[in-house]
Amino acid sequence: MRYFEDFRVGDVHELGSHRISAVEIRSFARQYDPQPVHLGRSAEPMIASGWHVAAVFMRLYVDSVISGSAAEVSPGIDELRWLRPVRPGDLLVGRSTVLGATPSLSRADCGIVRQRGELADDSGRPVLRFVFYGLMRKREYDPAAAGVIHPDTLGA
Amino acid sequence: MRYFEDFRVGDVHELGSHRISAVEIRSFARQYDPQPVHLGRSAEPMIASGWHVAAVFMRLYVDSVISGSAAEVSPGIDELRWLRPVRPGDLLVGRSTVLGATPSLSRADCGIVRQRGELADDSGRPVLRFVFYGLMRKREYDPAAAGVIHPDTLGA
Repeated sequence: MRYFEDFRVGDVHELGSHRISAVEIRSFARQYDPQPVHLGRSAEPMIASGWHVAAVFMRLYVDSVISGSAAEVSPGIDELRWLRPVRPGDLLVGRSTVLGATPSLSRADCGIVRQRGELADDSGRPVLRFVFYGLMRKREYDPAAAGVIHPDTLGA
Repeated sequence: MRYFEDFRVGDVHELGSHRISAVEIRSFARQYDPQPVHLGRSAEPMIASGWHVAAVFMRLYVDSVISGSAAEVSPGIDELRWLRPVRPGDLLVGRSTVLGATPSLSRADCGIVRQRGELADDSGRPVLRFVFYGLMRKREYDPAAAGVIHPDTLGA
């Protein structure tokens, strides 16, 4: 289990990859972003909704980082940029980089981790970049983690 | 059809509303944000993925504004904040406000419209707020719009 204390500035997490399909692009678009160019009903080549691309990043991040972390809610994101169109068949490769880690002012049991999120295509060209914030619980406040200090050692 | 020239600072677009269900929250979470609290598999009450909430905004915005506009791609968003948790049954009410409109430096046929996007619950409390950018085509460059000038009038 990874706690607030385990996120250090400069840490890079490789998040694996996801190959996006036309079926998936159309399915997301139908529900959340029904523009012709995302539905494959435009004269121009089909491209994925930008929100879909961001959601693909989130899935990679949840599977690689959040699932093994003491993660709480996220207050938000900054400076999100869609840098290149994403097309059916593109392989999206994820990475997150820790930019900052500071104790939370409102919750003593947590810290805020500031990270850069990125997706690149299989040629390494960036397609998505943004900064996001996540609240992570501190190890010292976690009853489960605190259990690693055996009571017998407390008086030593 | 609404062109770049029709977006003026201060314009407010009411985007309608969407009532979010547990089925929809779980379905989005399963595919893009499989954290227990979004899947309804946590001791805490179920809340929607923040990316899902943003996608709901997009759907309202596409239906209300983009579908009747000369919209091109979006370069990105800034300062996105998830202000309150969204729970099954919540009604999400959308609004967009034009913050700025400037000609594009890279595309003479377009301008960039900067807008605030917001979702509130049915008590008017904000749940999502962000700034987004959208490229819109100019009326003067649109062959269809130019067609309203009838050739017979050109020599008049």
